[in-house]
Amino acid sequence: MRDFLPGDVRKREYVISIIKQVYELYGFEPLETPAVENLDTLLGKYGDEGNQLIFRILKRGGKLDLKHSNSENDLSDLALRYDLTVPLARVAAQYRDKLPKFFKRYQIQPVWRADRPARGRFREFFQCDVDWIGSESPVVEAELISAVAEVLRRLGFSDFRIRINHRDLLFGILKHFGVAGELLNSAITVIDKLDKTGPAGVTEELKLLGIERADEIVRVIGKSADSAAELRTSLTAGISAGEALNTLDSIISLSSCPEIVIDPSLARGLSYYTGAIFEINVPDLSGSLGGGGRYDGLIGMFGKQDIPACGFSLGLERILVVMDERKMFPPEIELAAPADVLITLFSKDTVRESLRLASDLRAAGIRVTVYPEPDKIGKQIKYADQINVPIVLILGESELSEQTVALKQLGQSRQIIVKRSQLVDEIKAMTANLVRFSQ
Amino acid sequence: MRDFLPGDVRKREYVISIIKQVYELYGFEPLETPAVENLDTLLGKYGDEGNQLIFRILKRGGKLDLKHSNSENDLSDLALRYDLTVPLARVAAQYRDKLPKFFKRYQIQPVWRADRPARGRFREFFQCDVDWIGSESPVVEAELISAVAEVLRRLGFSDFRIRINHRDLLFGILKHFGVAGELLNSAITVIDKLDKTGPAGVTEELKLLGIERADEIVRVIGKSADSAAELRTSLTAGISAGEALNTLDSIISLSSCPEIVIDPSLARGLSYYTGAIFEINVPDLSGSLGGGGRYDGLIGMFGKQDIPACGFSLGLERILVVMDERKMFPPEIELAAPADVLITLFSKDTVRESLRLASDLRAAGIRVTVYPEPDKIGKQIKYADQINVPIVLILGESELSEQTVALKQLGQSRQIIVKRSQLVDEIKAMTANLVRFSQ
Repeated sequence: MRDFLPGDVRKREYVISIIKQVYELYGFEPLETPAVENLDTLLGKYGDEGNQLIFRILKRGGKLDLKHSNSENDLSDLALRYDLTVPLARVAAQYRDKLPKFFKRYQIQPVWRADRPARGRFREFFQCDVDWIGSESPVVEAELISAVAEVLRRLGFSDFRIRINHRDLLFGILKHFGVAGELLNSAITVIDKLDKTGPAGVTEELKLLGIERADEIVRVIGKSADSAAELRTSLTAGISAGEALNTLDSIISLSSCPEIVIDPSLARGLSYYTGAIFEINVPDLSGSLGGGGRYDGLIGMFGKQDIPACGFSLGLERILVVMDERKMFPPEIELAAPADVLITLFSKDTVRESLRLASDLRAAGIRVTVYPEPDKIGKQIKYADQINVPIVLILGESELSEQTVALKQLGQSRQIIVKRSQLVDEIKAMTANLVRFSQ
Repeated sequence: MRDFLPGDVRKREYVISIIKQVYELYGFEPLETPAVENLDTLLGKYGDEGNQLIFRILKRGGKLDLKHSNSENDLSDLALRYDLTVPLARVAAQYRDKLPKFFKRYQIQPVWRADRPARGRFREFFQCDVDWIGSESPVVEAELISAVAEVLRRLGFSDFRIRINHRDLLFGILKHFGVAGELLNSAITVIDKLDKTGPAGVTEELKLLGIERADEIVRVIGKSADSAAELRTSLTAGISAGEALNTLDSIISLSSCPEIVIDPSLARGLSYYTGAIFEINVPDLSGSLGGGGRYDGLIGMFGKQDIPACGFSLGLERILVVMDERKMFPPEIELAAPADVLITLFSKDTVRESLRLASDLRAAGIRVTVYPEPDKIGKQIKYADQINVPIVLILGESELSEQTVALKQLGQSRQIIVKRSQLVDEIKAMTANLVRFSQ
């Protein structure tokens, strides 16, 4: 887990602000849930591998009984949030009467997994989720994909690909090649690792599961297509996928995203998906920038009633890794300064005047930092340079008696004398020409 | 721990945006640290009571040895962040070479305490901290107090009081009345509860500690003052507080905050404070809106070198409780809608047109939500009403063929027909007259 120093936070907030802006243009509303959930809420939702990666919280006080604790479950009652989908499903069931018929929410919060860190993968990471609850219509998938694509375009990505698939198509292919019902989920877990292990590796692992026609399966799921019609002609005859291909066709047609491609090998590891599934990739990142899908059964696990739902999750850290490497941040983020002006300080007698001046400038919207103690002018200018503040304001005895200040622009040797009455306008004119971070 | 539905999140983000705005005007930069810290980092920093309230995380995999675990410390290695000051001190020591000479940071993140919930007190809550590292000058305290006061004024508070005190003054009073060195911290913990237990309760508890002149102590610390000069004359002769009274005088003079009062009974529970301490109160909330102080020894616990530091922390939930009760939120927050326009949907044949229109409007900056499935017009209008969206846009077969749309403003019975070419302007004119949430 990592600390984010000011430059890092600004980059993170820049990406988050664009994600929020787009999701709000699409009519999604913000939701926040606590970092800590009841352990029972999380267990059994992410598959066996997921269960192992949950951070558990030790019971407290009298609840903790060391002598009679024989397992992790005896010792812990709470856990850290593992994703944002399960908490949303809990909220959708718990607040059903308070939420609108269709609940469109976005949620940008950290989640925690006790996983091995890798490039763009951390034990604490932010998910940026957008979900639409209450409708089975493919309008939902189409709008979600369209919103996520718009986020990436506004961030400056032009080479992403949105792969989509449908669980029923994948199940249809597996069943056609004789995979028994109890092996379906294990087979999907294997296929989900196609990116990492390659076709030969997947074939081998499927055979280890006892799936004889693994070669044929891997060959068929290797055929991607721009439309379901195209895929229909290339699929082996006799594969039954119900309405899956029609649904994929509707999604592609409604979303109008040229970045979409149907990929029958896309599996998505999580066990709660029931329909369309998606994933976004860029060429220079193994793993995905984000993914999601339809999960019509999950909310029912927390309430009396099944409610259809679908969502898309972007990984903030994955996006940041690629944007950093490609230098995609605008200069006002890369070169941000903590203030517009540094006010110098030379003697205890003038401190109060310096602080009053700072207060006046701030009231005019100028960001001011004050050197906190009397010091040599050279040291104060060096500090301004170190923190990248572009203007140094000198207020000494002589300036005070003349109701003026001296302004020195960093990187320039000359300094100008400005009347107090013209100071705000002068500073605003100087900073207008400079790269500046503002929210 | 609580869920925050969209209306709650908007209120929280409104307060946070004002806090950030003011802190940035004062030249503070954002920092974020992970939710999870090493347990060792937190233990011993908050006093015995604090240690008990830390949420501990169970060791994972091979690290967890149930058979040979005899204590909480054997079972856990990580813990949830308890405040933002200790993580900052760790960061200040760890990144000393990367940080500027004076590091001014703000940090707005959740912390967790296994405490009993009360009004405005939760097990997960947000602290909004602002700290200045690297200087012993009272300019630091003055600017911090001034920034926090400005936050509260911009939020609409006019009746807050900033109580300040100095640990050395408190120690001086206690020593003057014969309290031995080893009892000083226990006495401070008792005095910290003056608000809750009252003077009689504190006197009694001090006597239980073996402090004989408890009556006199409670009488002396009960004298608050607007200046150190005033306090000096009212203090019992012979009390020695070193430079404490001069420091308090400087802080009051430099900050120019009329809300400040010196309160010798202010104790602050945390053990890491070494100098000036502060607390903000409003009449209608027991407990404080925030507090802080100088902690010159804490960073040295994580590094080779002592670095002076001082900070102020606002409690987001405390502020929100009072603002909610006093109805202090502006109407654009109270009445926020998730979108400007709802686009209706009547048949599968027109879905694509509806989504394209949504896309055009969004490109013009209008927030659009689409009804996801064909339904009766009455139901769609009812839904718009439920989610508070002010304009319903009707796009049926006839409107499509005529390149028009019908607009219906919620709460008004008539609807108007608008040409597609004039649609963006028309919607912007309609929403300009309405209360609208925008970031």
